[in-house]
Amino acid sequence: MWGHMHAGRMPEGYPQFFARAEGGHVWDADGTRYVDLMCAWGPILLGHRDPAVERAAARQAALGDAMNGPAPVMVELAERLVERIAHADWAIFAKNGSDATTACVTIARAATGRRAILVAEGSYHGALPWCTPVREGVTAEDRAHQHRFRYNDLASLEAAADAAGGDLAGVILTAFRHDNVVDQEMPDPTFLRGVRALCDRRGAALILDDVRAGFRLHPGGSWEGFGVRPDLAAFSKALGNGHAIAAITGSDPLREAAARVFVTGSFWCAAVPMAAALATLEELGRRDVPGHLAALGERLRAGLAERARGFNVGLRQSGPPAMPLFLFEGDEDVRLGRAFCAAALKAGAYLHPRHNMFLCAAHTEADIEAVLRAAEPGFQAVARLQAEGG
Amino acid sequence: MWGHMHAGRMPEGYPQFFARAEGGHVWDADGTRYVDLMCAWGPILLGHRDPAVERAAARQAALGDAMNGPAPVMVELAERLVERIAHADWAIFAKNGSDATTACVTIARAATGRRAILVAEGSYHGALPWCTPVREGVTAEDRAHQHRFRYNDLASLEAAADAAGGDLAGVILTAFRHDNVVDQEMPDPTFLRGVRALCDRRGAALILDDVRAGFRLHPGGSWEGFGVRPDLAAFSKALGNGHAIAAITGSDPLREAAARVFVTGSFWCAAVPMAAALATLEELGRRDVPGHLAALGERLRAGLAERARGFNVGLRQSGPPAMPLFLFEGDEDVRLGRAFCAAALKAGAYLHPRHNMFLCAAHTEADIEAVLRAAEPGFQAVARLQAEGG
Repeated sequence: MWGHMHAGRMPEGYPQFFARAEGGHVWDADGTRYVDLMCAWGPILLGHRDPAVERAAARQAALGDAMNGPAPVMVELAERLVERIAHADWAIFAKNGSDATTACVTIARAATGRRAILVAEGSYHGALPWCTPVREGVTAEDRAHQHRFRYNDLASLEAAADAAGGDLAGVILTAFRHDNVVDQEMPDPTFLRGVRALCDRRGAALILDDVRAGFRLHPGGSWEGFGVRPDLAAFSKALGNGHAIAAITGSDPLREAAARVFVTGSFWCAAVPMAAALATLEELGRRDVPGHLAALGERLRAGLAERARGFNVGLRQSGPPAMPLFLFEGDEDVRLGRAFCAAALKAGAYLHPRHNMFLCAAHTEADIEAVLRAAEPGFQAVARLQAEGG
Repeated sequence: MWGHMHAGRMPEGYPQFFARAEGGHVWDADGTRYVDLMCAWGPILLGHRDPAVERAAARQAALGDAMNGPAPVMVELAERLVERIAHADWAIFAKNGSDATTACVTIARAATGRRAILVAEGSYHGALPWCTPVREGVTAEDRAHQHRFRYNDLASLEAAADAAGGDLAGVILTAFRHDNVVDQEMPDPTFLRGVRALCDRRGAALILDDVRAGFRLHPGGSWEGFGVRPDLAAFSKALGNGHAIAAITGSDPLREAAARVFVTGSFWCAAVPMAAALATLEELGRRDVPGHLAALGERLRAGLAERARGFNVGLRQSGPPAMPLFLFEGDEDVRLGRAFCAAALKAGAYLHPRHNMFLCAAHTEADIEAVLRAAEPGFQAVARLQAEGG
């Protein structure tokens, strides 16, 4: 069992295998149903097995999926992304989020003829050797030409750019700060404008890693609320509502470099995930999904805060309400978080003790109320541990 | 349009977009039908939209695909691979062939605590910066710790191993030599045994890149006929008969390192491609697919050779018959090959002028006869060009 889906890294009692999923719920292999606040770690945006998406996928599957080139649906999907994603003049497609972030770095290097990439400390950009958070089997050269800065700290970014000097190819930034086991931070607008100005001044590409947040906060890319646009962006997770697809979008000045690099994969032109992505974007055009997620997220946050106060437990909640993270005060080893989640799981809510969670459009106010009820034995468990521990 | 699927790199008249596919045939976006000898560049092994595979995929899709962890089908699939793939004691799953080859290299480095990898000149192992054949946007460090040797040349391998010295982590080899625009070569058994002995002597991992050939030559891995087993193998393309999946298989001594490295992706535990892969393996257990492909490939090869002689055209055919490659004598710029394929395309056969092709189980003797008929205007075009060019 690999990576982030290893149940051994989850609290006691967490299931490793899942039998089925529908809307905002998952069933484990033993048939127990949970309100699902992980949504497959992001891919499920509209809900598991969304009828419109699955209809579109089945329609394309009846024609063909992996063929000798793409189906016409790729053109429609690229056009829709270029219409919707504010900075995008073109789009290309891949499978993994890591494919997309890696292609963005490669395109930035090809476009500038330079090598250095500025990467925020603690940011997750995928699991290839250049970016994986675990260094096993990774060489020093795999991480060459990377300079670190602190998210939301313009002075540290300027220092990293100075260290890169004339070799600066690009800056890669997640949509907001969503690092593991630290409070989430929205980007400071002054910082974002400063990053944009630095990239313009130094002729470097600004890369938005919107793999995790994309389509949950804003249909035009997660920075649209900030008035800052990247040169390249990486999308994946939610784009196909669970179907395996990633996209790289770019502005015109990067188009020629994107055509020069060689990135490809056997399944990159598969038509079914593209049909699913097109249907997902159509649903996003019909309904205010970010608004729905934010409203449910606010309700969850308020409910958890109220219960935390009632149990006299210190709870920190951070990040956009659509992608909630909670951490307990003084819980560096996540012992309290694990106890909380283990108890909530038994009461029917699948939560995460240290990673941001994901709401989906299929979640209802009743689901949030169910999560809040399931949180009560969680808070009791935390209060008990705190009383024992002094 | 990216990578290998760019119609601009194909002969005149080749379609870029495909409307549908069934069995051994594809239809382009204008509705023209072709006998498909590319099979989506390998993924289609049983035939497009194989009924048994699509039934299994639909059954799983009705339950769930991307969930918070894998479905029980992953255990079945891993067990089936471990039963079938001769060297395998365990299996983990990914999406792209590149994911699998990269994970193998990372695991070899983690297991040995060394860095150097021996890579054959001209071999294709994927499209990430460490292995992509085009260096645009790629840094020197992306290719660090690689030493080159010539496929089937044990002395050059020994020299590369000496250059790596005590830092030798592994040797990566394609199942046979299937480089672009050169005659294919089966592995020399003496060479393969020599590679195995060298890896054993030096404590390095032998990695079989079976992404392209896997399941077309032997159900137990492409080297089973040679009596040589790798320590790690990368599979993808044909494993799910078109569904996006890759697998890394390994032997017990590599298990602990495989558990230590961090490789993951949002869609890596998606259940539908796993159900498709399991159904593909079941079909492979029921029928002698490699035998069928080899027989059809022999028939194609004999028919092409006969017609080439009839037209007095020098044609070289190489590699395993199930994965045919043809190149014309004195055709370094592939001008003759392109003319041949352009004419054959008009006559209803989708071939490739410089890359190996792929047969599938849905192909029939009638399909091969149709290809041979379509080849006749191709040979006429080549003969005409040769007469003009002197």
